Amino acid sequence: MSVLNTAMTALLGIDCPLALAPMGGASGGRLAAAVSRAGGLGLVGASYGDPQWMARELELMRDVKQPWGVGLVMFTVARRFELLDLALQYGPDVIALSFGDVRPFIKPIQRANARVIVQVHDVDQAHYALDAGADALIVQGAEAGGHGLHRSSLPLFPAVRDAVGDAVVLIGAGGIADGRGMAAALALGMDGVMMGTRFLASEEALPSARVKQRVVQAVASDTVRTRLFDQVRGIEWPEGYKGRAIANDFSAAWVGEEQAFAASVDRLHVEYETAMADDDVSVKAIWAGEVADLIKDIQPAQLIMESTLRGYADSIERLRAFR
Amino acid sequence: MSVLNTAMTALLGIDCPLALAPMGGASGGRLAAAVSRAGGLGLVGASYGDPQWMARELELMRDVKQPWGVGLVMFTVARRFELLDLALQYGPDVIALSFGDVRPFIKPIQRANARVIVQVHDVDQAHYALDAGADALIVQGAEAGGHGLHRSSLPLFPAVRDAVGDAVVLIGAGGIADGRGMAAALALGMDGVMMGTRFLASEEALPSARVKQRVVQAVASDTVRTRLFDQVRGIEWPEGYKGRAIANDFSAAWVGEEQAFAASVDRLHVEYETAMADDDVSVKAIWAGEVADLIKDIQPAQLIMESTLRGYADSIERLRAFR
Repeated sequence: MSVLNTAMTALLGIDCPLALAPMGGASGGRLAAAVSRAGGLGLVGASYGDPQWMARELELMRDVKQPWGVGLVMFTVARRFELLDLALQYGPDVIALSFGDVRPFIKPIQRANARVIVQVHDVDQAHYALDAGADALIVQGAEAGGHGLHRSSLPLFPAVRDAVGDAVVLIGAGGIADGRGMAAALALGMDGVMMGTRFLASEEALPSARVKQRVVQAVASDTVRTRLFDQVRGIEWPEGYKGRAIANDFSAAWVGEEQAFAASVDRLHVEYETAMADDDVSVKAIWAGEVADLIKDIQPAQLIMESTLRGYADSIERLRAFR
Repeated sequence: MSVLNTAMTALLGIDCPLALAPMGGASGGRLAAAVSRAGGLGLVGASYGDPQWMARELELMRDVKQPWGVGLVMFTVARRFELLDLALQYGPDVIALSFGDVRPFIKPIQRANARVIVQVHDVDQAHYALDAGADALIVQGAEAGGHGLHRSSLPLFPAVRDAVGDAVVLIGAGGIADGRGMAAALALGMDGVMMGTRFLASEEALPSARVKQRVVQAVASDTVRTRLFDQVRGIEWPEGYKGRAIANDFSAAWVGEEQAFAASVDRLHVEYETAMADDDVSVKAIWAGEVADLIKDIQPAQLIMESTLRGYADSIERLRAFR
């Protein structure tokens, strides 16, 4: 595996400034371990926190010698602090926190000798997380799959860099699926990148082959940003956040029909749970980003890592050729 | 002025792969001339086409020896073809076309020995414009100021590059205000960039000092994407397009109140025209992009060009330092 040293690799003791997005239910132990073993930062996607799921997946990290971590959603962990304790029992090097107030979590995590990396979506959130004591930030644009706010990566990355100064480790996320995006993010002032959707179409990701094929087939214009998938699951997402997913029969039926949706939500909740159990992609959410255009195949995580680094080198060569 | 050669500079015979966005009413002859003289591609923003305005501003381009061009909005020029004839009378090297069907325009422009550069917002539009015979494309993400569709620049640029192949000259727009953005766009496969909002805060831009100061003060989260400013002006913008502007009293009053807006639109039209005449920035639209964060001062266009190229070189140095 090639090595690329930046402030991100120095902070975390890894070989390559590339993190796996802790995609809830998709970034399991097998995928996170593969990314960490290939030199990146593997993050297990515990998201809302199912203790049984966490125990099973984190067990797979026990024999990973390279740095690795766990991703948690703060607005749920704030109500169930034991989920953080559970994650810390497995000795992660990093806890990645998203969506909520980071203040209650910093000290318990740092006392457990783990780094706290906080996902932010605008300049104000960046200041807040750093004031609270975060060790590094994930700066996420709205082109990402899954949940986020409104800002786009290309102008957001340098805006956050200018706001926080050069000493803070920043990891760019949203819109990145290959070495070109990695080169762009580093040129824009990031110290590394996080990729989600690209790793969703990896052999080690937990979802079914059907889900992965849907990601491979999808293009950016197939994605939709909506709160409906959260609402039908009964997850009270904080105001302002939307989730980007691949449009399907469910979103086609209900996006723009929010009143009728609200009136039917109890029945729909039951149908949605059934669809989840049946792996019915015409109903259930497949969180995926605008990078869907760039993903043409399902690959082992290590190959994704290698081709990203190769593509990064190609991009640098391209830039060097301009005189 | 430094030189940077790419496929864009080769196609157009310019020194630096940086185009001025033809911002309607803001990119006048003085600004376009300054950008072309500094080695970029100056584009006069004729947009919907006011013949008197065009004649006055294009007259300023008569003694510009470097390549320059005119930007036109297709859905209006389609109804008033004489606006294109007027632009061509001044001998531009480039006509930049946006928002509409390019097919009627390609041959008249190429017969006049000008290049046709078409602005596109997604992969389908890119294919359409190339099939119609466009000489190059401007690929614009939704973080741009003014009008656009939904896609974000960072994942859109490589998606269009993959779709059209390496031989087509692509100019990235949306989210770029300095050399970091330029380096990112070139890493993502673009052959050059177009900047709007950064040049709106230039000494040579036509709007008032009050407008430029508002751009300097604004941050990305102050911008709003809406159709209201077009509707109040009575401009029938094609379905799906929104314009990004700095939020003000007018947008605060009417965004989300579309029914009440429709009921009051005649009265509001009169008030809006008055506000335009009075340069009242609490009412009139100031089109500006998410790059507002990155713009801290009003500068002469030549300095903007120079600092962009210097920032580009700094970004390349940054990338080279990673080993």
